[in-house]
Amino acid sequence: MRHFQEELDDLKGRLLEMGGLVESAIYRSVAAVIEKDVDQAQQVLKNEARINQMEIVVDELATRLLATQQPMASDMRFLTAAIKINNDLERMGDLAVNIVERALSLMHESVIRPAIDIPKMAKLTESMVHKSLDAFVRADAELARNVLLSDDAVDELRDIVYEELVKFMQLDPSNVRPGVNLMFVARSLERLADHATNIAEDVLFLVRGVDVRHHAEARQ
Amino acid sequence: MRHFQEELDDLKGRLLEMGGLVESAIYRSVAAVIEKDVDQAQQVLKNEARINQMEIVVDELATRLLATQQPMASDMRFLTAAIKINNDLERMGDLAVNIVERALSLMHESVIRPAIDIPKMAKLTESMVHKSLDAFVRADAELARNVLLSDDAVDELRDIVYEELVKFMQLDPSNVRPGVNLMFVARSLERLADHATNIAEDVLFLVRGVDVRHHAEARQ
Repeated sequence: MRHFQEELDDLKGRLLEMGGLVESAIYRSVAAVIEKDVDQAQQVLKNEARINQMEIVVDELATRLLATQQPMASDMRFLTAAIKINNDLERMGDLAVNIVERALSLMHESVIRPAIDIPKMAKLTESMVHKSLDAFVRADAELARNVLLSDDAVDELRDIVYEELVKFMQLDPSNVRPGVNLMFVARSLERLADHATNIAEDVLFLVRGVDVRHHAEARQ
Repeated sequence: MRHFQEELDDLKGRLLEMGGLVESAIYRSVAAVIEKDVDQAQQVLKNEARINQMEIVVDELATRLLATQQPMASDMRFLTAAIKINNDLERMGDLAVNIVERALSLMHESVIRPAIDIPKMAKLTESMVHKSLDAFVRADAELARNVLLSDDAVDELRDIVYEELVKFMQLDPSNVRPGVNLMFVARSLERLADHATNIAEDVLFLVRGVDVRHHAEARQ
């Protein structure tokens, strides 16, 4: 049996690999929407099974270490954070797949690229995801707090995008189908940003031992 | 310190109480949409904080028992299932709040009750949620499998609802706003059904020690 510290390092390595796959899935799903790139879409669908498989392995590993090693407080915090982050990453993979499904529908629809702020929202979300994983690797509370602050900006952008899309759909009945698809893309981006926020909260819990879930006031 | 078995019973009791709150939140959120009932909507918003608070307590309790009691295989399965079900219940509470937010928007919109299959979809989803929690209480694998089978029916209903809503929005630009709101209600119901499915999978894992996540073929 390996040394406990080696097992923890292995767990962290797996989470980071999974994080890389998820980041790439998000980037590709957005490219599939914006550039109607079917190859990128297919790549995301291909990688989903791998992300799901990794989730099961990480979950089993973290739970086993938690239950059998009687970890000290800081290792216990790391293991519980790992279980939560693992869960967030798996859901983020699902959201990238949701975006791809919308992208594939949009490829059959003659959208005159609506001047919608979706690319802007996507860029901000991608940056939050990247920073949250970076904050986890480096146990960087500053960076994690930075992610929490960006969440409001994503919500504002979402409101703008929704208004743009409602007007776009009201303009012409043939805009309804692509409008609905883009609405769900925006919704998935918003939820990806929420998951990045969850990860950032877990990093703060890990670094400072403070649970900031459901306590907006603690984010200041 | 209490006996381990008492702690497990306490944990189960808390999960069931939380399940009751979540079931009631879903029921009320749907009533808020269908009957434009603002009191029901406010009740859901009021109970959200309690569900969130319960999630944190259950999470801490289950994690502590996992890390300090060196549980045997069956208790370890129960504790990991409890952590997952707790997480699902909290997200289900959030989804009920999402539905309520759409219900509140819909109250300001003059929808001629569209002949949409949303009430039907809501009923099926509510029944799945109830059965999944019941399967957990009674450790009933048969009932859990029954929930897994209903998930496809919800997905079919969702497709029908989406088509109805697209046509409704195409008919008149003033239908776009209520149509979008109802679209998101349907989406939240679909996700509630997914969480009921997750819980049913956890029950099967608990009862039979088999992990059926991401293995559709194992559902047969």
